[in-house]
Amino acid sequence: MMSAPGETSTREGLSAAELRDAWLFLSAADRARGFEMLAHGEADAFFESLPPEAQADLLRTLAPDERRIWMRMLAPDDAADLIQQAPAGEHESLLALLDEPTRKEVNGLLAFAEDQAGGLMNPRYARLRPDVTVDEAISYLRRQAREHLETIYYAYVLDEQRRLLGVVSFRELFAAQPDKTVRDVMRTSFVSVTEDMDQEAVSRLFEQYHLLAIPVVNAQGEMQGIVTVDDIVHVVRREATEDIQKLGGMEALDEPYVKIAFTQMIRKRAGWLSALFLGEMLTATAMGYFETEIARAVVLALFVPLIISSGGNSGSQATTLVIRAMALGEVRLRDWFRVVRREIAAGLALGSILGSIGFCRIMLWQAIGNVYGEHYLLVALTVGGSLIGVVTFGTFAGSLLPFVLRRLGLDPASASAPFVATLVDVTGLVIYFTVASVILRGTLL
Amino acid sequence: MMSAPGETSTREGLSAAELRDAWLFLSAADRARGFEMLAHGEADAFFESLPPEAQADLLRTLAPDERRIWMRMLAPDDAADLIQQAPAGEHESLLALLDEPTRKEVNGLLAFAEDQAGGLMNPRYARLRPDVTVDEAISYLRRQAREHLETIYYAYVLDEQRRLLGVVSFRELFAAQPDKTVRDVMRTSFVSVTEDMDQEAVSRLFEQYHLLAIPVVNAQGEMQGIVTVDDIVHVVRREATEDIQKLGGMEALDEPYVKIAFTQMIRKRAGWLSALFLGEMLTATAMGYFETEIARAVVLALFVPLIISSGGNSGSQATTLVIRAMALGEVRLRDWFRVVRREIAAGLALGSILGSIGFCRIMLWQAIGNVYGEHYLLVALTVGGSLIGVVTFGTFAGSLLPFVLRRLGLDPASASAPFVATLVDVTGLVIYFTVASVILRGTLL
Repeated sequence: MMSAPGETSTREGLSAAELRDAWLFLSAADRARGFEMLAHGEADAFFESLPPEAQADLLRTLAPDERRIWMRMLAPDDAADLIQQAPAGEHESLLALLDEPTRKEVNGLLAFAEDQAGGLMNPRYARLRPDVTVDEAISYLRRQAREHLETIYYAYVLDEQRRLLGVVSFRELFAAQPDKTVRDVMRTSFVSVTEDMDQEAVSRLFEQYHLLAIPVVNAQGEMQGIVTVDDIVHVVRREATEDIQKLGGMEALDEPYVKIAFTQMIRKRAGWLSALFLGEMLTATAMGYFETEIARAVVLALFVPLIISSGGNSGSQATTLVIRAMALGEVRLRDWFRVVRREIAAGLALGSILGSIGFCRIMLWQAIGNVYGEHYLLVALTVGGSLIGVVTFGTFAGSLLPFVLRRLGLDPASASAPFVATLVDVTGLVIYFTVASVILRGTLL
Repeated sequence: MMSAPGETSTREGLSAAELRDAWLFLSAADRARGFEMLAHGEADAFFESLPPEAQADLLRTLAPDERRIWMRMLAPDDAADLIQQAPAGEHESLLALLDEPTRKEVNGLLAFAEDQAGGLMNPRYARLRPDVTVDEAISYLRRQAREHLETIYYAYVLDEQRRLLGVVSFRELFAAQPDKTVRDVMRTSFVSVTEDMDQEAVSRLFEQYHLLAIPVVNAQGEMQGIVTVDDIVHVVRREATEDIQKLGGMEALDEPYVKIAFTQMIRKRAGWLSALFLGEMLTATAMGYFETEIARAVVLALFVPLIISSGGNSGSQATTLVIRAMALGEVRLRDWFRVVRREIAAGLALGSILGSIGFCRIMLWQAIGNVYGEHYLLVALTVGGSLIGVVTFGTFAGSLLPFVLRRLGLDPASASAPFVATLVDVTGLVIYFTVASVILRGTLL
């Protein structure tokens, strides 16, 4: 549980924290009423802190004048996000709420995909010329701060062609001798990104370099805008949510679980579930091939769920590890051989552990209750041996699959635990019954 | 793939980006050599951008004088992280590298758990008195900026007892009339956290309020330090990695996949895998109860993997959705009834879809090849009916389990897909054979 942040309550007795807490469970009308009850200072922060979808929903319930005020309060990148979340039919009327120059900026931003650097970018940033003094730069920025700038924590030094020459942090400017020029104190070795860089890659740069903002430049090195770290926290969390949902064996919901419509959620889940079910039907076919073996030695059927689930579980571990390491940039496509080799070794080790446990379990049950008949030792060897094979194969397949998917240009996170389990189930049955037919031939079979 | 950030190369021909790219694959000696080849300005940023473990490893390979320089470059919270990552035997010698006042600060920070606000906190921040003018405040901060402050983007207004009265952003200070007092321009409604708040909850506040830093206060309202957003990007990603690994059915590795020692990784994976295996043994016991049914109607055995994996897959979807929604704060313990009720409805819908597909599949195979004998219709009904039951139960159990774990004070993320699948497998078998005994009594059974 989250302890309440130390916010002061408004005089009307409703704090922003309380409203936020109840938000998801309120009707649209109650949300509007609660929002109007907030003190003015709190309402600002509250509105800015809402996700873009919720901002769009709230705007719809407000009077036209109010709508204009709140829309104009947003930075251009946040306004673009809001418009992107609203139904297409409302885009024009939302754009019309903005003043002319902002409308142009927002229109420019709407051209970028939401998950690229360009879609996260704010076109407003503090800019400086290289040859002004530090003192002049500070008073210039002080004037710029009065306008609605996204951030003044870094200032960007541009030449006449708007090409990015250097970056100077506000702290550096502040700490520098007032009569030096900006060129003397700016850093010329800096991190920048292009407009089409994937947001996941952008977020890794923020994490590696502990930055508050990263400049976005085009192919000609011309400054386009900045991406700020406060938007990145949201990106990192949303990307993780998408990956987690895919790993759980479904499409990413793209909406909060508590908010998504029931039918839409069923659609996102039924697709993968049906695909996995169709794949899993192969197990019935595989079992059909061994029907005579099962009829002769029913004891074999008893261990089918145990064997195949062990393959599925070990495959799930391997695929989860590899997919996450890929998402974090620790593992690249060309590392596939090293990773798969290591996972085969891991599979042999884990398979031996499970095989030993399985072997001991059968011997123990036999000693207690004589449940597996005269050939119990051979049955125990069959189960133990199959487990080594099935777990090794599961680990191998689970680690290889994300590389194959990435190589094919697909999302490696689709190699979900259920997908790997389904793949491994069929192979697991074949391994099990093959081992059985070798070990038990002439006795049970 | 990440496109290279726009960094300038050093004269020696090795850029920080190249070194970072190769880092994980270099020996300790090569890392030290590469690091010494960086230009001075780049080496600073590079060292600061390394994770604490890598910083500790690198320090160990440097000469004692160098070690002192780099250690002293770190902010107190980063120095504390580094020391926490080093073996306990090295803590004293690392602390000895710091100057006396910093050593005291770092010692104070080492008392906090790494995953609490206190463990992320930096004790250095910009502080102001309420009654100075804006102009005085700016020149005071300008002097403070020359010392090694973590951030000057917010200044914190304290009374004589170090109690936090208000917060003023640098931009607000800059944009304000110079002759107003700090008290006039500061915000008294602000977000703050206590030292023992969980880092996951802290990161949600950063995301909701789009903040760059949050002040940490103790129970008496006395200012202790600040948490900055650049540390939070790392926290969000690491927490997601831990949850993903737990959802994959293992302990969180706590180290990068490519770096963790083989035996340690096996330990983290074998524990859960063995526990799941022991649970899954119940399937052999359950199957044992139905041994006579299987002997009489071997056709029933053919669909066992299909039935139980469908329960596992649907349970995996439900548990993944609920765990992630909990981690995001969308779903709380008291919402359990609403969520579980909705999931039962989802389970019935999904089960009906899979049941219909299963029914049609058996009818189709029968029409093509007469593989299921004269009672094929009853077999199809058994499989279809069981699927509805198993998928509904899987979805129900998968959504309920995270709530039960949280209620018991355990980590809901332990309700991994494999764990749920194992639980559902046993129940699935019981459902399947019970439905079979009802539908097939007098014919096949």
